[in-house]
Amino acid sequence: MVITMKSGCLKRNVAFVIKTLESKGCAARIISPGPKVVLGLVEEINHSLMEEIRGLVTHIEGVEDINTFDTTWKLVSRAFTGKTTAIKVGSRTIGNGEVVVMAGPCAVESREGIIAVAREVAARGAGILRGGAFKPRTSPYSFRGLGEDGLKHMAEAREITGLPIITEVITPHEVPLVAKYADILQIGARNMQNFALLEAAGEADRPVMLKRGMMGTIQELLLCAEYIVARGNGKVMLCERGIRTYETETRNTLDIAAVPLLKEYTHLPVVVDPSHAAGKRELVPAMAMAAVAAGADAIMVEVHPEPDKAFSDGRQSLTPDAFGVMMQQLARVAQAVDRHIPGV
Amino acid sequence: MVITMKSGCLKRNVAFVIKTLESKGCAARIISPGPKVVLGLVEEINHSLMEEIRGLVTHIEGVEDINTFDTTWKLVSRAFTGKTTAIKVGSRTIGNGEVVVMAGPCAVESREGIIAVAREVAARGAGILRGGAFKPRTSPYSFRGLGEDGLKHMAEAREITGLPIITEVITPHEVPLVAKYADILQIGARNMQNFALLEAAGEADRPVMLKRGMMGTIQELLLCAEYIVARGNGKVMLCERGIRTYETETRNTLDIAAVPLLKEYTHLPVVVDPSHAAGKRELVPAMAMAAVAAGADAIMVEVHPEPDKAFSDGRQSLTPDAFGVMMQQLARVAQAVDRHIPGV
Amino acid sequence: MVITMKSGCLKRNVAFVIKTLESKGCAARIISPGPKVVLGLVEEINHSLMEEIRGLVTHIEGVEDINTFDTTWKLVSRAFTGKTTAIKVGSRTIGNGEVVVMAGPCAVESREGIIAVAREVAARGAGILRGGAFKPRTSPYSFRGLGEDGLKHMAEAREITGLPIITEVITPHEVPLVAKYADILQIGARNMQNFALLEAAGEADRPVMLKRGMMGTIQELLLCAEYIVARGNGKVMLCERGIRTYETETRNTLDIAAVPLLKEYTHLPVVVDPSHAAGKRELVPAMAMAAVAAGADAIMVEVHPEPDKAFSDGRQSLTPDAFGVMMQQLARVAQAVDRHIPGV
Amino acid sequence: MVITMKSGCLKRNVAFVIKTLESKGCAARIISPGPKVVLGLVEEINHSLMEEIRGLVTHIEGVEDINTFDTTWKLVSRAFTGKTTAIKVGSRTIGNGEVVVMAGPCAVESREGIIAVAREVAARGAGILRGGAFKPRTSPYSFRGLGEDGLKHMAEAREITGLPIITEVITPHEVPLVAKYADILQIGARNMQNFALLEAAGEADRPVMLKRGMMGTIQELLLCAEYIVARGNGKVMLCERGIRTYETETRNTLDIAAVPLLKEYTHLPVVVDPSHAAGKRELVPAMAMAAVAAGADAIMVEVHPEPDKAFSDGRQSLTPDAFGVMMQQLARVAQAVDRHIPGV
Repeated sequence: MVITMKSGCLKRNVAFVIKTLESKGCAARIISPGPKVVLGLVEEINHSLMEEIRGLVTHIEGVEDINTFDTTWKLVSRAFTGKTTAIKVGSRTIGNGEVVVMAGPCAVESREGIIAVAREVAARGAGILRGGAFKPRTSPYSFRGLGEDGLKHMAEAREITGLPIITEVITPHEVPLVAKYADILQIGARNMQNFALLEAAGEADRPVMLKRGMMGTIQELLLCAEYIVARGNGKVMLCERGIRTYETETRNTLDIAAVPLLKEYTHLPVVVDPSHAAGKRELVPAMAMAAVAAGADAIMVEVHPEPDKAFSDGRQSLTPDAFGVMMQQLARVAQAVDRHIPGV
Repeated sequence: MVITMKSGCLKRNVAFVIKTLESKGCAARIISPGPKVVLGLVEEINHSLMEEIRGLVTHIEGVEDINTFDTTWKLVSRAFTGKTTAIKVGSRTIGNGEVVVMAGPCAVESREGIIAVAREVAARGAGILRGGAFKPRTSPYSFRGLGEDGLKHMAEAREITGLPIITEVITPHEVPLVAKYADILQIGARNMQNFALLEAAGEADRPVMLKRGMMGTIQELLLCAEYIVARGNGKVMLCERGIRTYETETRNTLDIAAVPLLKEYTHLPVVVDPSHAAGKRELVPAMAMAAVAAGADAIMVEVHPEPDKAFSDGRQSLTPDAFGVMMQQLARVAQAVDRHIPGV
Repeated sequence: MVITMKSGCLKRNVAFVIKTLESKGCAARIISPGPKVVLGLVEEINHSLMEEIRGLVTHIEGVEDINTFDTTWKLVSRAFTGKTTAIKVGSRTIGNGEVVVMAGPCAVESREGIIAVAREVAARGAGILRGGAFKPRTSPYSFRGLGEDGLKHMAEAREITGLPIITEVITPHEVPLVAKYADILQIGARNMQNFALLEAAGEADRPVMLKRGMMGTIQELLLCAEYIVARGNGKVMLCERGIRTYETETRNTLDIAAVPLLKEYTHLPVVVDPSHAAGKRELVPAMAMAAVAAGADAIMVEVHPEPDKAFSDGRQSLTPDAFGVMMQQLARVAQAVDRHIPGV
Repeated sequence: MVITMKSGCLKRNVAFVIKTLESKGCAARIISPGPKVVLGLVEEINHSLMEEIRGLVTHIEGVEDINTFDTTWKLVSRAFTGKTTAIKVGSRTIGNGEVVVMAGPCAVESREGIIAVAREVAARGAGILRGGAFKPRTSPYSFRGLGEDGLKHMAEAREITGLPIITEVITPHEVPLVAKYADILQIGARNMQNFALLEAAGEADRPVMLKRGMMGTIQELLLCAEYIVARGNGKVMLCERGIRTYETETRNTLDIAAVPLLKEYTHLPVVVDPSHAAGKRELVPAMAMAAVAAGADAIMVEVHPEPDKAFSDGRQSLTPDAFGVMMQQLARVAQAVDRHIPGV
């Protein structure tokens, strides 16, 4: 339930709405402080209580609109802000016209390894370092990452190279731990609809990159982002990384149309991960260029110094040299669409 | 990592393997006590430690096989037991030739409601009562269930009707709470690959019904079941509930071939949920009959006394009367494949 | 454009409508002679001519309704006849409560081969012999069938066993040739939207079995059937044979819900082909039983005396013995849904 | 069956192979005259005859390789020529580094209309005029195009503007008629596996643009192209136009990875049609830019002076002005990947 107050309404009207909600046992939350105050009631209430509250609130002075929408999103809609949200991370900003490139290995495999790759990608223009410390794995017997040690290694690589870091968090209770080290929290494709995790991320003081599920629709992706924003964290970016289709030549099918579609629907910036979609490194540069041409605010790619020895996803990882060649190409395409990659 | 000992090996050989694992900081777990002892090391260890352990263990007397398999399942494979696992719940048994029917509303909406519907379905031959207290919802603004109150209402309905209850658990930390009330823990389609939840369920003392994700392959489903069994809980049943395809006439496409396929691959019993696949109540009886004819061990259907007033999924819920008609038809089909529905 | 006359309207009203259409250069066709006369104008006319004709016809006495629908079907709708159309082929009838089993090899490979397999399946209760003489092949270098020789061999097998024959036709100009030999014309999945072929089949004096395309929706399948019926051939049956999805364990995903859905939408009988959907023979019996339980009017399965030596589709072909076992099981399931397989 | 002769083999060796094939009743066809002569036997022969021929031919002097491959393509493979085939059409060339833009309405609706739109797109840099005269339609009651009149109108538009024309052919027997007027024959998505049509196009003296089916795999698309090339027509271009997936926000999902994949597998040039994939005009420019950045040799877009009045596909058609804006953007992206759009 989201209650929107009229522009310029009195503070005591807002207070009275909050008190009314509390009188029914519901905690209110200010989603937007103005110019129109928006109040959220993001709790599990049943239908009859919802109707009862609506009846009470609808007549309070200053209330403009009460929305109990089940199937659509509001806080993430483009109309809500009118322009793309810019998210500053270190010296880069996602969503303001730059194209930010996040690069690094699938998993952090060792302290030396992540530092070495961080140096390689930083030297070639990457803006953010990626790397997995907690890995969701299809099989219970696969390597699941180095955990907190991996986070520490990444933090050390940040100190050395100056690159902010993005890394995945896979359970709600690990959000504080990961947030202690990471500059951006990544929520992976398998967890797009892990609602408890979304809400935990919504309470963290870190930007979140939410990946579209392999069978997630655009509408579902936006509703999942709404979960995060409704908890108070507005710094969300959405990542298209390929969807599951019948075609087996690629690991997933990159839905390039998602870029202009999301730009139309939401104010959140859009990231594209061509590596997971492709599943084959030779396809990555062409797909990355397509993403920049289509309007992506950021690109995330896997880079590994020795792809054939990677613990995971080696087949789709670029070597540092191939990454460098791609960065030069990306910079030219970025310019053709009035953007730029800082430092390239 | 799974270590299989030779048939009839000495206890001290097993003990020595466990001690060796512990010397490297790894806790071991006995997955199967015999005739061949199987030890599991279901922890997050990195590749080099795994290789080191393999080197040490491989020469211990009595060790038959060391498997570090990443992409396949073992404990759930049909060959592991040779016959379908029978899971006893109250007076019914899933996997021994009966066809057990789980019925009830999508969500528990009130104490009176769930008790009334429990009486209706019990009178018509249902073996287990279904109902959601914690609901994963696509939108953050939807009704998410009554929580523990819902569990209490279900428990009361069980006391009155004698029907065991199945209900969904959606976060790892709620597993103990849900297990306090429920006879079977349900893991929903969106959480098929919520690995932390799978592991928590693997440590619970309750049977688990794992639903196939909308985007899950048969192989992935089996690996997810392996997560649960590897933690020590062998009472897992798998539920086919429709997959996401391009066809929009139904909510999802019921993959009926999954029934014989799973029967071939795994010893775990197979449940079919035609309600979620259909999305339209008029299709449910034909699909349920198909599932029984194909060999399903159990059927899960949504029943609501007034479907049009249901908080969720009303369009696909049967009325108690329609449920009764269907049960008569199901009983005849069950007989045609040498099975029976107790009490119908 | 379809024009429906009022019940009991005068013959001269109908004649006047036809004359009016002809005055605009359009040939009319009586789709249904009564009780309500239905006239079809199944020609390529442009939008403005259509509007002009509508203006003229709408005021003629006895005209009830003028439909220029682009996106829906009419003649095949269940409401059009109110009951399932029964199609008699030899001594069997598809659509009247029997379950008819069509069996035989993917391709006719030799005169002796097809006669032998015809004898095998006839002895075990098959009602119709299937076999391909013209084969659509994914590769230009694959065996495409024996052509007319194959048809002659099938006709000889029919003479010997009494089984009517069904075989595929793949180009419009071969329809008369195939119709000379075949009792039922089959239009394959790849040709579902080969509209010229549909229209040629619509002018043939033979029942047609139309297979759903691997990418066909239920709505598209019905519109394709409408193409045939609109040309004057009402003896059409629809065949569900699996759709293309992300799952690779089976060749295609059998959409079992299509059976009750089609029963609801159309009066045309429904056939299920589990062999092509499964792609593996061990899954075929369970899927065939599911289809009968769901309400299919006929089943089509591939049978080959030596599956491993078949020119095509051997992996999914049953041996005659396995076919015999399945027929016994199917007969029991048929009985459980108040149907029967004649002779089994 | 494809027979490859050794480089520099004697003419009489080739002649002897042909004679040998003829002695078994098979017509041979020279697919490539050199430097390595390649002979094709693209006829329907059965397995045993194929083996018999192989036995005879294998010992003839100068024969290098005999391929009876069923599941793969050869003539279209990149290795066969080593570089992209350039197809000259009027003053433009597809496949030599230009980016050629094909533009025009979905269907030719009138003489005046097509001439007007041809002028509009020519003035803004289109290289080829598209328009449908024979339209495959999902419903038998939809407008199917103006037929030969439409072709004549297009030819007149060509005369006036100098733009070569591309138009769809939907049945084998209409290939000569369409080839009389068209500069490029288009085979639509629904007909990708209409093998008789592919072979008819393979015997036409016109370049062919083959569209990928809505559920066609990359492998199938290449095999379908092989059908055309094997009949002697090497001037084939492949068109990615979106595949059918579960996502309903767009009409189809543009598989952008198909561009670099096809570039890797085949020497045939690659066209992208963003209009049909998008289904919404506002997405078309971003998707077209993505296609050019990914390496497409040509782009096909729908343009209509008054999209809302179009007989078909209006929702996805650009206005001439929007087309003009897009052309300026495309030219910049083309330059960023070392290509150009002549005249823009």
